[in-house]
Amino acid sequence: MSDFLKMSRRIRRTPYTSRIEKNGVSGFTVVNHMLLPKSFQTTTEDDYWHLRSNVQVWDVSCQRQVEIVGPDAEKLVQWMTPRDISICNVGQCFYIPITDTNGGLINDPILLKLGKNHFWLSIADSDLLLYAKGISIGMGLDVKVDEPDVSPLAIQGPKSEELLVEVFGEGIRDIGYFKFGWIELKGTKQLISRTGYSKQDGFEIFLNGSYLGETLWDLIWNAGEKFNLLPGCPNLIDRIERGLLSYGNDMTRENNPLEMGLGKFCKLDGSIDYFGRNALQKIEKEGVKRQIRGVLFNGDICPNCDRPWPVIVDHRIVGEITSAIWSPRLNKNIGLSIIDCNFWNRGQSVVVELPEKKSASGEITYLPFE
Amino acid sequence: MSDFLKMSRRIRRTPYTSRIEKNGVSGFTVVNHMLLPKSFQTTTEDDYWHLRSNVQVWDVSCQRQVEIVGPDAEKLVQWMTPRDISICNVGQCFYIPITDTNGGLINDPILLKLGKNHFWLSIADSDLLLYAKGISIGMGLDVKVDEPDVSPLAIQGPKSEELLVEVFGEGIRDIGYFKFGWIELKGTKQLISRTGYSKQDGFEIFLNGSYLGETLWDLIWNAGEKFNLLPGCPNLIDRIERGLLSYGNDMTRENNPLEMGLGKFCKLDGSIDYFGRNALQKIEKEGVKRQIRGVLFNGDICPNCDRPWPVIVDHRIVGEITSAIWSPRLNKNIGLSIIDCNFWNRGQSVVVELPEKKSASGEITYLPFE
Repeated sequence: MSDFLKMSRRIRRTPYTSRIEKNGVSGFTVVNHMLLPKSFQTTTEDDYWHLRSNVQVWDVSCQRQVEIVGPDAEKLVQWMTPRDISICNVGQCFYIPITDTNGGLINDPILLKLGKNHFWLSIADSDLLLYAKGISIGMGLDVKVDEPDVSPLAIQGPKSEELLVEVFGEGIRDIGYFKFGWIELKGTKQLISRTGYSKQDGFEIFLNGSYLGETLWDLIWNAGEKFNLLPGCPNLIDRIERGLLSYGNDMTRENNPLEMGLGKFCKLDGSIDYFGRNALQKIEKEGVKRQIRGVLFNGDICPNCDRPWPVIVDHRIVGEITSAIWSPRLNKNIGLSIIDCNFWNRGQSVVVELPEKKSASGEITYLPFE
Repeated sequence: MSDFLKMSRRIRRTPYTSRIEKNGVSGFTVVNHMLLPKSFQTTTEDDYWHLRSNVQVWDVSCQRQVEIVGPDAEKLVQWMTPRDISICNVGQCFYIPITDTNGGLINDPILLKLGKNHFWLSIADSDLLLYAKGISIGMGLDVKVDEPDVSPLAIQGPKSEELLVEVFGEGIRDIGYFKFGWIELKGTKQLISRTGYSKQDGFEIFLNGSYLGETLWDLIWNAGEKFNLLPGCPNLIDRIERGLLSYGNDMTRENNPLEMGLGKFCKLDGSIDYFGRNALQKIEKEGVKRQIRGVLFNGDICPNCDRPWPVIVDHRIVGEITSAIWSPRLNKNIGLSIIDCNFWNRGQSVVVELPEKKSASGEITYLPFE
C-alpha cells in the first residue's frame, strides 16, 4: 500500500521542520495535529545502535504543552489524574496518567510544575487541552488553560550530557532525573529537563518561542560533530524493549491505568479526590482481568504493526499486539500486548497471528524486555 | 521533501481501508487519529471534473461521531454551541460551530438529532469528545458521551441519488437536504443523510458496525459502473471554490465564528445560554476586525499550501492564505484567507507571498468563488 502523507496547514510544521528537511528526513507521522519525524536516511536498527552509544537530536515539538495557570490550577490537574500531585515540587516532572470517570485513559503526559499555580502538561496524542478546558468551564474554576508557543527538542543518548555541557555549561550536570532547570538562549530563559522517550540518558529543551527554533537547532547541531550527533526520532526498538507505552497504540480510553501497569501512579486509598477514583477502586477490588505484557515471537523479521495482531492460546484470542518490531539485540520479534489473566504468566506459549494469514509461535514475558 | 506517512495502530484504519487499497489509493492524511484517503490514481483536477458530473464514493470514516445521550443531552449540546438547537427536529442535521468561553472555535460538526435526548456530532479534526466529556463531568450532567462504532461513507456527485435509488430503493428520493432517513443493510438499520463535504448533491451513510464495511462498499461499488462511479475524497478545488471551511486549516481556536462568516449560526440576542455567549456578544458589539474572504491570484499553478502564505498590501500583512489551489474553471489560483477590515472589500489588490521567495499579484473577492 502507498503511504504518502498529504501536507496541509492543519498538520502543523514545527520550528525545526526546515532543519530536519535539510538533514534528510524521509518519513513523518502526525501527533497532536503536528509533524513528528519518523525516519531519516538510516534504518531503525542503525538508529537504535547509534542511540545506545552516542547522542541524537529529536524534533518532538508534537509533545504540545497544555498550560494550566491560576488559583485553581493544582485543583484542576488533580481532578484529572489518579496520581497524588500535592507532593510534586516546583522544578519536578511527574508522569501522570489522565482518566475519565470510568477510569479510562485520556492521555499520559509529563507534568512540569513551574510554580505553585502554574503547570505544563507535556502531552501524548489526544487533545488534552479540550478535556482540561471542558472540566474547567464546567466546574467554573478560576484557571486559564492554553497551548503556549513551546516546542520541545529532545537530546537523547549517553553523550547527551557532554554535548549539552559543551553548549550550555556545567550547570546541566546538576539537573536530576525527572527534574528541570533553566538555560539562557539569545537573552531568553528556556526550560530544560532530564526526561525523554528513550531508555538512554537524555534531556528535553522546552523551547518557548518558535522564532528561536533554527537558532537552537544550529547551536546544538554545530557542537555535535565530535559527539557523533545525528538527527533522530523516538526509536521503536528502544521504546518496545523498555516497555514504554504509546498512547493511541498500546492504550486508549478502553484501558485503565491498572491494567497498563501504571498502578504505582494511582492513589487508591481515598485520601485524594479525582475523576475516575470510584471506578479505579472498584477495578482494584475486583482484580484486573488483563494486563500489559511483552510477547517474544519467532519467525522472520515482522512487518510494520499497523493494526492489532491477535495473540492466540488454544484457538482463543487472549490478547492483541499493538506495537511490534524485530529486536536485533534479543534476536527475536518483540511486541506489547494486554493479556488475559489466565495466560499472563512468563513463559506462557502463544501464537501470534500476522498479516497475510501468517503466524508465529512465541511466549509471554514481563516488561521491560531483558 | 519526502512525505512518507508511517503507519501504526494509533493512526486507525477504517472499515473501508482494505477496499480503497484495492482501488489504488495513493495518498492519505490523518484526521481524528484515523486515515483519510487524499488521492487515487488521478489528479485533483480530473477528480474535480468527474465529481461535477458523475458520482464518487468517499471513505470519510474520520468524521467520527460524538454520541451524546441521556436526560441532559440537549443541555450539554446547547452549552457548547452558539446555534439555537431547540428548533432542530428529530431527523434533521444542523451545522453547529462549537466555541469555548472566549468564543474561539473548538470544532464545527454536523449535529444529527436521533431522538429527543440522543445526538450524534459528526466532527472535524479535534477531540470534541474530550471537550464534551470534560464539560459533562465538570457540570455533573446526567448524560453519556462516547464514540460509537460508526464510520460514514459519502456518496457525492449529481448521480448519487440515482445510484443510491438503485441500491436502496425509491425512499432515497424523499430525504431532504440536511435531513436523514434509514436504510436496511443485512438486517441492520443504517442512517443516511443528504449531506456531504462537496458543492454537488450527495449523501452520507453513517455505517454503524465496522464488520459491515466491506459489504456496504461492495454493494455500492458493484452497482456503480453504469453511473461511472469512482473512488474519491473531499476535493480541494471544489471545497475552496465553494468556500467550505476546514477546521485546523482555515480556522482554529484563535478564530471566532463571526469572523469566519458563521454569524448566521450564532444566537446573540441573549435568548439562549452557551459558553462563549458573552465573548461573542462583545465581538459583535465592537464589530469584527477581520473576516474570511477569497483571494484570486495570478501566476503559475500554485504549490501545495502546507503553511500559511502572507497576503500583503503596501508591505503590510493583511491576512494569511490557509488553503489554496489552482481552479481550472476560473483559470486562476484561489485561496482562503482572513483579511483585515481595511482591506476586505471585493477588488482590493493584494500580493501573495509564496514559498521560495516567490510572490503573485491578486485581488480580494467574496465567497463562494463564482
